[in-house]
Amino acid sequence: MTTVTTAWVGELTDALGADSVLTDPDVTASYARDQAMLAEAGLPAAVVLPRRTADVVAVMQIASRHGIPVVPRGAGSGLAGASNAVDGGITLVMTRMDAVLEVSPADRLAVVQPGVVNKALRDAVAGSGLFYPPDPSSYDWCTIGGNLSTNSGGLCCVKYGVTTDYVLGLEVVLADGRVLRTGRRTVKGVAGYDLARLFVGSEGTLGVITEATVALRPAPQRPVTLAATFATTAQTGQVVERVVTSGLVPSLLEVMDNTCICAVDDLLRADLDRDAHALLVAQSDTGGEAAAREIEALAQLCRDAGAEFVHTTDDPAEGDLLLAARRMALPALERLGTTLIDDVAVPRSRIAQFLDGCDAVATARGLTVGVVGHAGDGNMHPTVCFDPSDEGQRDRAFAAFDDILELGLSLGGTITGEHGVGSLKVDWLEREIGPVSLEVHRSIKAALDPAGLLNPGKVLRRVPR
Amino acid sequence: MTTVTTAWVGELTDALGADSVLTDPDVTASYARDQAMLAEAGLPAAVVLPRRTADVVAVMQIASRHGIPVVPRGAGSGLAGASNAVDGGITLVMTRMDAVLEVSPADRLAVVQPGVVNKALRDAVAGSGLFYPPDPSSYDWCTIGGNLSTNSGGLCCVKYGVTTDYVLGLEVVLADGRVLRTGRRTVKGVAGYDLARLFVGSEGTLGVITEATVALRPAPQRPVTLAATFATTAQTGQVVERVVTSGLVPSLLEVMDNTCICAVDDLLRADLDRDAHALLVAQSDTGGEAAAREIEALAQLCRDAGAEFVHTTDDPAEGDLLLAARRMALPALERLGTTLIDDVAVPRSRIAQFLDGCDAVATARGLTVGVVGHAGDGNMHPTVCFDPSDEGQRDRAFAAFDDILELGLSLGGTITGEHGVGSLKVDWLEREIGPVSLEVHRSIKAALDPAGLLNPGKVLRRVPR
Repeated sequence: MTTVTTAWVGELTDALGADSVLTDPDVTASYARDQAMLAEAGLPAAVVLPRRTADVVAVMQIASRHGIPVVPRGAGSGLAGASNAVDGGITLVMTRMDAVLEVSPADRLAVVQPGVVNKALRDAVAGSGLFYPPDPSSYDWCTIGGNLSTNSGGLCCVKYGVTTDYVLGLEVVLADGRVLRTGRRTVKGVAGYDLARLFVGSEGTLGVITEATVALRPAPQRPVTLAATFATTAQTGQVVERVVTSGLVPSLLEVMDNTCICAVDDLLRADLDRDAHALLVAQSDTGGEAAAREIEALAQLCRDAGAEFVHTTDDPAEGDLLLAARRMALPALERLGTTLIDDVAVPRSRIAQFLDGCDAVATARGLTVGVVGHAGDGNMHPTVCFDPSDEGQRDRAFAAFDDILELGLSLGGTITGEHGVGSLKVDWLEREIGPVSLEVHRSIKAALDPAGLLNPGKVLRRVPR
Repeated sequence: MTTVTTAWVGELTDALGADSVLTDPDVTASYARDQAMLAEAGLPAAVVLPRRTADVVAVMQIASRHGIPVVPRGAGSGLAGASNAVDGGITLVMTRMDAVLEVSPADRLAVVQPGVVNKALRDAVAGSGLFYPPDPSSYDWCTIGGNLSTNSGGLCCVKYGVTTDYVLGLEVVLADGRVLRTGRRTVKGVAGYDLARLFVGSEGTLGVITEATVALRPAPQRPVTLAATFATTAQTGQVVERVVTSGLVPSLLEVMDNTCICAVDDLLRADLDRDAHALLVAQSDTGGEAAAREIEALAQLCRDAGAEFVHTTDDPAEGDLLLAARRMALPALERLGTTLIDDVAVPRSRIAQFLDGCDAVATARGLTVGVVGHAGDGNMHPTVCFDPSDEGQRDRAFAAFDDILELGLSLGGTITGEHGVGSLKVDWLEREIGPVSLEVHRSIKAALDPAGLLNPGKVLRRVPR
């Protein structure tokens, strides 16, 4: 085993240089997993940090020759174990390929390497009055490559959509080392199959993304912000439904339940209303009086639904403070114990039912479940808090996590709105998509990665050979 | 041959009923081709008109059993020969499956069968204050199934994107008759590969779409319209570039060259400026003073670029008249002879170069080329007009058509922005995407349709067996 390992590790070192191939177990262990702390993870035999596409080609050629599994990853901010290592495999860390290769205001696009941090791209285009919308919570450290691989969303989705909506073209190194360039620099294009969007969201199971051409938008206007609290989930759900049916498109519409409100208040001492059942935070970025009108219409919907408290502000600093409460929800919940963060998206008409269902799960399992979510697009993150040293609690927490996925599916939703399947929800994916779709998934995986080397066991269950 | 034909046609008749299976050559000939008059077309042995998904399943099972090619089609409005018949095959006409199954204002979506006419869907959702944006020129007779299969665009794309941006979920009958349901009813979802968007734009080569769940938007506001004429293409290109860089997002930004202006003026007697080199038509649908401001900003860009004439109106009827001139460009060109409509998309910064290049092609080939296009997204439709009875002209017209594709590629563009590859541009596709992408296309085609029964020879060249 050791000799065999040495052989291909030697080839990697010859091809990429010793400083790009790490094998010290103390070091490789630090690349073993993402933020899904409870998903399984192996120990990589080698961690490889390529500097250019040719390096990735060499890695895939060597891996193919020796039948070594390869797990591509970025910063490791994932929440489903998609970049968790495979025992004895290569973990391919893309963070050194972090150049913004081009920003073109005239064509409103950017060309980037996968290791560029989301915030770095946002900053790089801001000077041109441009905006890269997808904004996962980890935007200040997650990479664009990871965003592409999981089709990341964020707070902006209600108005601006998700990562795949901004992908024009990709360069991808295939399992056998061939380099595929697909897509385009034009706004429109229908020449052949939409391969770029097949790779987006495929969590590193079909190829390694080495470059992306992404569309940009004009920078949004200064936001106007609203916060409102409600005594019941029914009222909260009614507001979301009325927002949808009335044709309002806020740039952000977030919800937190009472558990989150109290946890955030404990953390920030923000003088939040600890009796409120739910808090909605919304913004409009359409600018000027249009934004004021949009937020006032939203405020009126809140009052009509019986909100206990409605506050609006066009002061960006105050808006940031209101938003900070929402952004701190997960860190605040983490102070209550170990957390299992769920990621169910339901049709927007079902949000109230979903919130009530999560309450029922918490009660039935005797656990704390805090719900925070992107109300405007129905993507909810119920978070189960528990003490991992208490085996009973731990088992109940896993059961509650599954109850919530079950609830989501029963309401016509999906088991993952933006975090991905990873290794955490492989069984649930089979349940959601059914046998025919699973067969189609497997046939596409086999077409692109016949030896099953790319991120085995993620998205799709590992097939015994 | 006849006996064999009878056998499987008999099976089709048994499964679907005689009124769903047409074999009279006079009748089947009328389903032989779409609007790409010069693309090759065979004669179908049978034209089948299914009423439900189960009918499509039966057709694909019978076709698989007997190795009969199947060409799915809608109304036949295509412009690349994608639905042209294959000799001795089945042409599967989806127009009887024309139900709008659901309109959900609360989830801002609709569920439709593929035979629904684009305009019928628009009308069906308008009562709920909703809007299905993709609006190909043939919107009053093309079907949603065809729109999905070619990933149709239209005038709206500059602001609202194309068909794939509105697809949430699909039901697809696979080559062997299995029924795949993929996608979702939720706004977001990343459970598994994005199969829905793989089928969108695949021109019937991967499966037969039998149902679609599409996202809707709030209805746009009453439009404000601008028309402006220019003495040079450089001025026109400058306006488009300034629109992009200044962050304006009109809901429509169309261009016509002098050939189109004169042709339309001849047809409509609209008193257009026959000396103008180009006419731009733009709209804003953001409503109220925001729209007025947006159009005024655009008018200023036109004046800054040296426009000869700038006119704006908030009267929708007058706006419709200005738009009618644009919409009549192709019918007007058709009066000048047989037309070859090209469909090149270029980066928006290259529009002036592209327009000049088309002029040069017309001069070099001694032919009339009228250019009309979606300036806001760079998707241009240079249209070669010629007398088909003159063999020399005909040859030069085909050469000019190719010159224009060549020009588009040389400017970093694509051979098709929205019409598709069909049978017309199969060779050009190989040239645009290159050998690795072609191999990946073929491997995906083989994974989903190993016998090569679905729309053979479209998108991808037929592989000799």
